[in-house]
Amino acid sequence: MFMQEIELKGHIIDSMIMTKAFDKTLDLGGDYKVLEFQVGKEKTDPSYAKLLIISSKSQQHLESILEELQNIGADIPEVEDVNLKQAEKDQCLPKGFYSTTNHQTFVKLNGEWIKVGHPKMDAVITVDPTTKTAETKVIRKIKADDYVVVGHSGIRIVPPEKPREAGQLFEFMNSEVSSEKPKEAIIRKIAKEMFEIKQEYQKNLKEGKNEGGIAIVGGPAIIHTGGGEALAKLVEMGYVQGLLAGNALATHDVESVLYGTSLGIDIESANPVLGGHKHHIYAINEINKAGSIKDAVEKGILTKGIMYECIHNNVPYILAGSIRDDGPLPDVVTDSVEAQDIMRNMVMDKKMVIMMATLLHSIATGNLMPSSVKTVCVDILPATVTKLMDRGTSQAIGVVTDIGVFLVLLAKELEKLENENK
Amino acid sequence: MFMQEIELKGHIIDSMIMTKAFDKTLDLGGDYKVLEFQVGKEKTDPSYAKLLIISSKSQQHLESILEELQNIGADIPEVEDVNLKQAEKDQCLPKGFYSTTNHQTFVKLNGEWIKVGHPKMDAVITVDPTTKTAETKVIRKIKADDYVVVGHSGIRIVPPEKPREAGQLFEFMNSEVSSEKPKEAIIRKIAKEMFEIKQEYQKNLKEGKNEGGIAIVGGPAIIHTGGGEALAKLVEMGYVQGLLAGNALATHDVESVLYGTSLGIDIESANPVLGGHKHHIYAINEINKAGSIKDAVEKGILTKGIMYECIHNNVPYILAGSIRDDGPLPDVVTDSVEAQDIMRNMVMDKKMVIMMATLLHSIATGNLMPSSVKTVCVDILPATVTKLMDRGTSQAIGVVTDIGVFLVLLAKELEKLENENK
Amino acid sequence: MFMQEIELKGHIIDSMIMTKAFDKTLDLGGDYKVLEFQVGKEKTDPSYAKLLIISSKSQQHLESILEELQNIGADIPEVEDVNLKQAEKDQCLPKGFYSTTNHQTFVKLNGEWIKVGHPKMDAVITVDPTTKTAETKVIRKIKADDYVVVGHSGIRIVPPEKPREAGQLFEFMNSEVSSEKPKEAIIRKIAKEMFEIKQEYQKNLKEGKNEGGIAIVGGPAIIHTGGGEALAKLVEMGYVQGLLAGNALATHDVESVLYGTSLGIDIESANPVLGGHKHHIYAINEINKAGSIKDAVEKGILTKGIMYECIHNNVPYILAGSIRDDGPLPDVVTDSVEAQDIMRNMVMDKKMVIMMATLLHSIATGNLMPSSVKTVCVDILPATVTKLMDRGTSQAIGVVTDIGVFLVLLAKELEKLENENK
Amino acid sequence: MFMQEIELKGHIIDSMIMTKAFDKTLDLGGDYKVLEFQVGKEKTDPSYAKLLIISSKSQQHLESILEELQNIGADIPEVEDVNLKQAEKDQCLPKGFYSTTNHQTFVKLNGEWIKVGHPKMDAVITVDPTTKTAETKVIRKIKADDYVVVGHSGIRIVPPEKPREAGQLFEFMNSEVSSEKPKEAIIRKIAKEMFEIKQEYQKNLKEGKNEGGIAIVGGPAIIHTGGGEALAKLVEMGYVQGLLAGNALATHDVESVLYGTSLGIDIESANPVLGGHKHHIYAINEINKAGSIKDAVEKGILTKGIMYECIHNNVPYILAGSIRDDGPLPDVVTDSVEAQDIMRNMVMDKKMVIMMATLLHSIATGNLMPSSVKTVCVDILPATVTKLMDRGTSQAIGVVTDIGVFLVLLAKELEKLENENK
Repeated sequence: MFMQEIELKGHIIDSMIMTKAFDKTLDLGGDYKVLEFQVGKEKTDPSYAKLLIISSKSQQHLESILEELQNIGADIPEVEDVNLKQAEKDQCLPKGFYSTTNHQTFVKLNGEWIKVGHPKMDAVITVDPTTKTAETKVIRKIKADDYVVVGHSGIRIVPPEKPREAGQLFEFMNSEVSSEKPKEAIIRKIAKEMFEIKQEYQKNLKEGKNEGGIAIVGGPAIIHTGGGEALAKLVEMGYVQGLLAGNALATHDVESVLYGTSLGIDIESANPVLGGHKHHIYAINEINKAGSIKDAVEKGILTKGIMYECIHNNVPYILAGSIRDDGPLPDVVTDSVEAQDIMRNMVMDKKMVIMMATLLHSIATGNLMPSSVKTVCVDILPATVTKLMDRGTSQAIGVVTDIGVFLVLLAKELEKLENENK
Repeated sequence: MFMQEIELKGHIIDSMIMTKAFDKTLDLGGDYKVLEFQVGKEKTDPSYAKLLIISSKSQQHLESILEELQNIGADIPEVEDVNLKQAEKDQCLPKGFYSTTNHQTFVKLNGEWIKVGHPKMDAVITVDPTTKTAETKVIRKIKADDYVVVGHSGIRIVPPEKPREAGQLFEFMNSEVSSEKPKEAIIRKIAKEMFEIKQEYQKNLKEGKNEGGIAIVGGPAIIHTGGGEALAKLVEMGYVQGLLAGNALATHDVESVLYGTSLGIDIESANPVLGGHKHHIYAINEINKAGSIKDAVEKGILTKGIMYECIHNNVPYILAGSIRDDGPLPDVVTDSVEAQDIMRNMVMDKKMVIMMATLLHSIATGNLMPSSVKTVCVDILPATVTKLMDRGTSQAIGVVTDIGVFLVLLAKELEKLENENK
Repeated sequence: MFMQEIELKGHIIDSMIMTKAFDKTLDLGGDYKVLEFQVGKEKTDPSYAKLLIISSKSQQHLESILEELQNIGADIPEVEDVNLKQAEKDQCLPKGFYSTTNHQTFVKLNGEWIKVGHPKMDAVITVDPTTKTAETKVIRKIKADDYVVVGHSGIRIVPPEKPREAGQLFEFMNSEVSSEKPKEAIIRKIAKEMFEIKQEYQKNLKEGKNEGGIAIVGGPAIIHTGGGEALAKLVEMGYVQGLLAGNALATHDVESVLYGTSLGIDIESANPVLGGHKHHIYAINEINKAGSIKDAVEKGILTKGIMYECIHNNVPYILAGSIRDDGPLPDVVTDSVEAQDIMRNMVMDKKMVIMMATLLHSIATGNLMPSSVKTVCVDILPATVTKLMDRGTSQAIGVVTDIGVFLVLLAKELEKLENENK
Repeated sequence: MFMQEIELKGHIIDSMIMTKAFDKTLDLGGDYKVLEFQVGKEKTDPSYAKLLIISSKSQQHLESILEELQNIGADIPEVEDVNLKQAEKDQCLPKGFYSTTNHQTFVKLNGEWIKVGHPKMDAVITVDPTTKTAETKVIRKIKADDYVVVGHSGIRIVPPEKPREAGQLFEFMNSEVSSEKPKEAIIRKIAKEMFEIKQEYQKNLKEGKNEGGIAIVGGPAIIHTGGGEALAKLVEMGYVQGLLAGNALATHDVESVLYGTSLGIDIESANPVLGGHKHHIYAINEINKAGSIKDAVEKGILTKGIMYECIHNNVPYILAGSIRDDGPLPDVVTDSVEAQDIMRNMVMDKKMVIMMATLLHSIATGNLMPSSVKTVCVDILPATVTKLMDRGTSQAIGVVTDIGVFLVLLAKELEKLENENK
């Protein structure tokens, strides 16, 4: 018999941590005894449980179970230091490496708990023993001799707790992905949340800290469905602190500004336009001739739209390349690994990320960011939201609706809020 | 070799009738020769073609091909009278009966072309030789000794021609079912069409004719997604001349008026409500106690909402029963055959039918009505539109969007149009 | 301050009952104190909790919270008898009626716990004080003077517990609805479950008890996608003890047997067939002429297929009418209320229900049956599964796949199992 | 009034070219007169039409109409040479450049028709006057001084004609995208087509020509749904001459071979596996340690699966990078522009492309290849097929089904065909 005591603390009943601990242990072929249990008397009191985890198979089996339990927030008391092993070659991990969750993580080094920088899922943790710092690294960034965390000792995970304030947007967390929800009400809640985050961001700015705010991840359907103007308005109003998109969104945004069409369909009339199928290539050609989107703005060629507002309002953007791209625009980062690094930096410290009508960029961004960022995914296909959550971005709230009309109503609601709070 | 001459007239190239005639003949194992062909010189000129249809198999094979060609609009020149056979038993059709399309149809009786009443698909034509009238009948309405049209002689079909006015909504006809269209533009077009139909309907009314107008076919997702208020507004503004729905739409409409919820979710806040899962049963109970929806309006229990506006504005409605129903409300017609008859009468003479977020009622209504009625199907699932068209309602234009936000924007657009035209 | 003690017993952590109790109380604006908590030391030991539920608003608010807690399995200790009120009119419920869940339910009458017959959701409980029996009744069945349960006193709910055996199909319970699962593995599990249920059913039969077994709820897409033959095989092999469908499934089954087509498409070649659009009306006509499906089998007109196998093997079926129906067949029950009663009787005592490619019949059946029946919903649209669960059939396992290929592989797997166990 | 004669030749009625010419002209605000029309008397005879296209607006308007007509196959008689303009800068196109379709194209140079190499959509045509050759080039490949085709003179397009052989798979062309089709029948047709293409490819090989064959475009859902083994079988049997995929397909293929899981789910049992969430990172690490997939095969680490079979059977593959990638594997081409070039070379000369369960790679590949390649798109989401066709790959046949079960049945069917033809 192989055994290990573990501890669970906090709102372990509310947040289902206790339930998950029991489930995981049994699902994985282990067993448990409850050694101690103190439940918080009042809703604000934390609870505490001490469990004995048992494997009848092997020490390795026990350790696998323990690793899973840690990933949902279990602590191993009297914990030893984290185990480190050096990588033998670039991009090659030592045996038994620890694979990260997207939750906030700590490692114990020389008896001290160190916060791991830049949480993201499916990475490893490297430790610099001299500076006593730890951070997540993806496999391709591993260098020979990097100290990589192996096993499960000396690791502590803090998953996000379910918010308790009544009427909050993020109460929806974990609810079903369904199109049959009152949409105006949901839009009002998202608007309210955005409004508050903007206030906070501006306060931060005044204090000299450029952190927080909202990042938008968007696909070209925003433009095709007629939501481009509304999104440009959001940028102008200060609700966007970073834009993560691809060549298509930028190209069709430019197309809609220069020619009034998206993929050749007139946005005002919904009719196909004479020669319209060439417009997006025209748009790329115009930007190529100017040099870049920024050049086109400065030369007065591009005078409105999403990309214009980004440049005009100093909102950083990343256009990540994909094999679907026509052109692409000179601003596109065609190397996917380089693009990921830029994307990760753009979302890491944001308060909220809103994903709009793009499966590719949504899942990509979800993979790169910590679970503590509030995440809303708006798409007409429930499958997009399901996939995003299946792939680990379980903090996401899904809103199944039509992005074109959603954005129009969201912009109106934000304008109303701004007017009411002037 | 078995042969027959046929004629094609009208905009047979534009409307693809010529293409379909060639295709059908070859697909079905026949062959053709073009005997004569005169193409309209100008766009307004009709074209004319005389084809010889050939089967190398049998006379019956030839006749099967001819019947298919008639269904797309081919004429058989020097046509004989329609063939009639009497039904032997109730609900039993004679061998070789002719199965209708949903297009306008004529039969030749004693050398004279008679218009067939109430076109709908998958029915048969019965002829009353004494009154010289013909109408479609569904199989269950057949009585012993009814004169039923058999074979394909003496039948002429007039399929709808593609409209030619630029910028019209129904130009979209046959276009792909995609969510990626500019939605505000499409909503504007639908609103314009509705506005014109309302003007025409009111003119008819003044002339003492209660015909034309718009029928709405709606599912409960209208209420769940927060579009109920906007649809009630449409009724109030005179844009609805008939409502085809089920128990669920009416129940959740009443629930939303009496308790502010739909399926227990607060429509204003999108939050679940204490005891909310009982609200729809409460709603049914209140109507049961009052006697009917009308009684509830008259007793001041129901004071707003879709059903209230229908009663208040004398808009007829049919609530067709289904096996999913809780309750059902006393107003529900639980027998499906009886309900179909009422539904058919309600849409037969309408100018436009808008189907909203219901697969069942949309397909049911599509089956019952002539192809000449302008049909728009709004649903978040492209599969609903695809199924509707697969099942023969090929005149339908699909708008893939979220009904909750769609209705809000449609009501705003109609109000704008009303104000502009005051 | 208004308060009430409640008790929770059983696997309340595993089955998330404790978590839900905390959540519900806070979500509904109440508060709690944990008075006692004993956690099961071993995985088989039950746990026990005594909570004090607090409302600062009103006694009525407290009672609303208590009712919700009961619905997830909370007991009120030293419970009083159930409260009964008589209905004043037919179909009218007394104020404060208790609305049922689909879980097993007990009521306390004269100090004794009585099992409520025929659990289903959204009904009420009526009690016969003379016979000391209780059963669920839908609102339309209420007669004046019926004793209806009101309030929340004297009610005990037993929700299904999560199964614990490793490798079982129903472990999937509560997992995400995604098409991206290994399908052959899932089919093998379903087959194994069906095989065991059949063994058990046949043992029951030998002991003179006709109970247990499997009911199939099916839509016409089974035939359209080419799965009809496989489903007929399942009936023949003894895997179907009840079939719940509509006019369309039966009509297209007959069409496919008599003419080799479904909706006019040849099932062997996937090509459209000459005159094929008339075949389903032909099929209805043939059955009309015979008198009924049974008559058609006995007269040797219908010699194979799903309906044939049902009649041949004495498998009961219900064809519930809908407003989409052509015909309908003489066997169809056109009144939806009557159809519901038959459907309810057919599923009530089954061990397993498999829903295939029909939103309407799946939700209808889910509404009528207890949560203790194992439920699998197979559909190519994730929305069907989501809606089914949103509407309260939360015990359902969703399998997002193509019913045509699913049935072919399921039949092969069952044949393999039969051969292995001969 | 501005006018120009055009000619239409071939099966212009069957293939709807005549209909489209009338439609386009009127839709774009022009007008036409039919000057001459000779219809093919027999089905094999080509037809001929001479039209006068009229614009009342401007010469430029007329030319825009003419360009659209050319793109559907219209000829301008007594045509002048193609117009060429030199690019001023790299990646910058001259004003009025001609944007390509994906159809076979010819340009007239010094009175002679030259075939344009490598047709693909949304590119331009460059001409080398010295070698008298022309080819398509995407905008980013344009160099200063390249001769680029401008305007619409001297261009001839040959769109694919609808096939006429009865019972062929590609008869489905232009049919609705619906899941409700008989799937086994469709699988049999695809298998038959694949079998014939393989025979032809092997005959070519014997004659020393490596051309023709089948390319597979695949997403990771193939592995998740349990179809990996079947696809590996297809490669082994010689049905794959090129594989276009991304990091995810290869990673999960390796994961499934090394650990029996896909994304941590056991493929044999459909259960989650202890530590399974790390398996795909393990898989990448193993390949990283070996050096590449090929190295892993040669070192005996990878012994079966899709990637193994590709290497073992010398089937070329391209793994195109994306921002979603974990890792990525060393074999992945991370630059999207470079990846596109490789993809284009891989499909250009294929007879058939089958796209499986990937929106991104399907659309990307569709953009890169000529319309003459037979294209089948298999996906459980109808939206994938709709988008593919909306984006110009209109030759694609959509099969809406579950890729896991589809591949299992397809492999069985191909094995049966092989056995029958031994």
